[in-house]
Amino acid sequence: MNNIQSYIKEHKDRFLNELIELLKVPSVSADPAYKNDVLKTAEIIKKSLENAGCITVEICKTDGYPIVYGEKIIDSNLPTVLVYGHYDVQPADPLELWDSPPYEPVIKKTDKHPEGAIFARGACDDKGQMYMHVKAMEFMTATNQLPCNVKFMIEGEEEVGSANLATFVKNNQEKLKNDVILISDTGMIANDVPSITTGLRGLSYVEVEVTGPNRDLHSGLYGGAVANPINILTKMIASLHDENNHITISGFYDNVEELSKEERAEMAKAPFNLDNYKTALDIDAVYGETGYTTNERNSIRPTLDVNGIWGGYIGEGAKTVIASKAYAKISMRLVPNQDWENITKLFMTHFENIAPKGTKVKVTPHHGGQGYVTPINSIGYQAASKAYQDTFGKTPIPQRSGGSIPIVALFEQELKSKTILMGFGLDSDAIHSPNEHFGVWNYLKGIETIPLFYKYFAELSQ
Amino acid sequence: MNNIQSYIKEHKDRFLNELIELLKVPSVSADPAYKNDVLKTAEIIKKSLENAGCITVEICKTDGYPIVYGEKIIDSNLPTVLVYGHYDVQPADPLELWDSPPYEPVIKKTDKHPEGAIFARGACDDKGQMYMHVKAMEFMTATNQLPCNVKFMIEGEEEVGSANLATFVKNNQEKLKNDVILISDTGMIANDVPSITTGLRGLSYVEVEVTGPNRDLHSGLYGGAVANPINILTKMIASLHDENNHITISGFYDNVEELSKEERAEMAKAPFNLDNYKTALDIDAVYGETGYTTNERNSIRPTLDVNGIWGGYIGEGAKTVIASKAYAKISMRLVPNQDWENITKLFMTHFENIAPKGTKVKVTPHHGGQGYVTPINSIGYQAASKAYQDTFGKTPIPQRSGGSIPIVALFEQELKSKTILMGFGLDSDAIHSPNEHFGVWNYLKGIETIPLFYKYFAELSQ
Repeated sequence: MNNIQSYIKEHKDRFLNELIELLKVPSVSADPAYKNDVLKTAEIIKKSLENAGCITVEICKTDGYPIVYGEKIIDSNLPTVLVYGHYDVQPADPLELWDSPPYEPVIKKTDKHPEGAIFARGACDDKGQMYMHVKAMEFMTATNQLPCNVKFMIEGEEEVGSANLATFVKNNQEKLKNDVILISDTGMIANDVPSITTGLRGLSYVEVEVTGPNRDLHSGLYGGAVANPINILTKMIASLHDENNHITISGFYDNVEELSKEERAEMAKAPFNLDNYKTALDIDAVYGETGYTTNERNSIRPTLDVNGIWGGYIGEGAKTVIASKAYAKISMRLVPNQDWENITKLFMTHFENIAPKGTKVKVTPHHGGQGYVTPINSIGYQAASKAYQDTFGKTPIPQRSGGSIPIVALFEQELKSKTILMGFGLDSDAIHSPNEHFGVWNYLKGIETIPLFYKYFAELSQ
Repeated sequence: MNNIQSYIKEHKDRFLNELIELLKVPSVSADPAYKNDVLKTAEIIKKSLENAGCITVEICKTDGYPIVYGEKIIDSNLPTVLVYGHYDVQPADPLELWDSPPYEPVIKKTDKHPEGAIFARGACDDKGQMYMHVKAMEFMTATNQLPCNVKFMIEGEEEVGSANLATFVKNNQEKLKNDVILISDTGMIANDVPSITTGLRGLSYVEVEVTGPNRDLHSGLYGGAVANPINILTKMIASLHDENNHITISGFYDNVEELSKEERAEMAKAPFNLDNYKTALDIDAVYGETGYTTNERNSIRPTLDVNGIWGGYIGEGAKTVIASKAYAKISMRLVPNQDWENITKLFMTHFENIAPKGTKVKVTPHHGGQGYVTPINSIGYQAASKAYQDTFGKTPIPQRSGGSIPIVALFEQELKSKTILMGFGLDSDAIHSPNEHFGVWNYLKGIETIPLFYKYFAELSQ
């Protein structure tokens, strides 16, 4: 690839401004209040794919938010890269913890981003990372260097489970046919320690409701005499882990792959400083499953976390009430071989079984997805590794991530191709949190690296 | 007392309309948004005491909401009755569970109230029950039958702990001097089973905050590796009860009075049908401390209930977040001899001690109060019993209540007088719940019974 650095230098301000405009639209898929913004964002993506050189671009309707599809087929004998990304974002709350409004992007310097970072909801996850691919495409078409066929599939429901993308993929296997899938929706270890994600955890996300009495009661008149659904819910959730922080759901670990000593030793080579980790989070100790390190706990081990809990009086002051109902949102991160639908069933059966008399329990599955592993000897991984070597001057470290992109396992199943996860974010970029940001350096480095992936993938595929 | 029934019959519609106007003002003391409504309610009470025949009526400023004081002293040789009540109400939420708006009172018939009940927040607790005393006063002064001196002290902070009333009482012992205190802020067993409350539970109400990491985290990247404050909070709360539903806080039961077999046998004579109780609450089983009956659990035993819990994402849909903080409001009902301030300290120490590494815990006491017992051989109790006999045709049953009126123990301490709890509400009146109501029959029966208490109290005091 020629002239990529000079092209980026010349268009840097426009690249940043286009992303900033995209970040101003609050495309929160979880909250129906933002429906028009999500739809507007799909239109912006369509325009940007057209401007980047895609020949056919369409907004494909689904039962939920649309999928933006674009392609440029230059030669049926050349390999085809399918780029996947998402234009929806996580809800921004709690709003009061943002230093600047989540949909008014600002560029500020940070310790990890001395060249500045764009602060906004979606800056890293995934608008910024997705848009790197659009700008890489622009470079390759503008300079006549596109070495492969390219397809883009950008969806608007990743943050709520991608239910309609799954149907779309199943119904459009020919259209989506490809030789490798490229996604930037993960992170890397540090700006001077490039890494490529080779494993993802699966996910099962459920909502539980515990009902006690049929109405809110006065805690003086009824306290101690009836099952208080909040107390019961805390007891039930607490019992989901034993004293070693193993999950107590029967059958939960049945298919969990146990890594060999050698593999664990290999993993342990990744740079990690426990003191820095604790300092960054302002905690005096880490916490987790006995017998595993922090990096193992959040990558090769399944987990169960409460993501939200509510019930009773939560306003100012005091109210002496026993609530009729209590609720929690609970998600389980799964490792390869754990089937998320089976785990969801195990959870439901277990949770219903441990409900004491005097209460009723309802478990509603939200969504889920399988875990995934990419082999590092695949052409796709090799092409990515060479691209990073060129732009970072270092061989990237293959790394398992604790996060989930449930659709990746489905891609393999339906489209029979492997996914390469070229993530340019950092763990400290606060995705899903207040003050999410994405380094300007990382954004431009992604735009620089992606075209080299195309080049090497085309070469290695010959 | 002459003509009381005919007086009530003649003025019934006005008695109801005045109460309905009072209920239209949302005097929620817990929520600063209602400040003007609380203050407006104090003005209404002042007017109504003047209209009822009080000679001196004043709105006494405090550091919080004012206390309305009124009196009519007819003869310093006659005994003095001090009436206490409160004009503030509980918050009305959850609003969506009300069949009619909480501040638009309507009269509807119910199974327990075939003559109709007034549905509104505060209908029973305590505007309706407090206003019975105002109307009883009106009757006695209008018909020149007042047999005692009367003082009224109506406060606006009962639902948030009466902190400023305590100061007011301490600073105004001479002004408030009395021979008996009369309160209607409790219930009775049934309209055909009159009862008088002889015991109240004490209360300690605290708010807890558990902090894990210093910011919300992505549950995929951090899940399993750090203490999730919601999971930890559920574990900590769950551990507050053992498998017999005993409270595990060290020292908690030290001063709890154990009732004799005989006393428990006497209590067990109160009419109670467990099947009806379960049906009314739509539960398949009761739940509570091993070794005690339902009526014992909610009256002579101390309890610990979570009144509210919140943390993480509680909006629509799913968010894969590990919250930085989780919160709960927890109240303990105490029995006589348990000191609430000591119990609050024991709770704080215990809760801080059980917090695992990797978390920080903050416990904030909200308010509290001591338990109380009224002797049934006192003149006040005897006068009340005779009054009920006249109007209900039955001797009322002395009964311990599970509720708390923290100020009652303070009255005894500061004013050296006993309190008589003449409550006319029913357990099913849904106080502190959606669809709170108060029977029209009960309201008028209260207005009829109260003057007879004055008559018998004056006679027995001679």
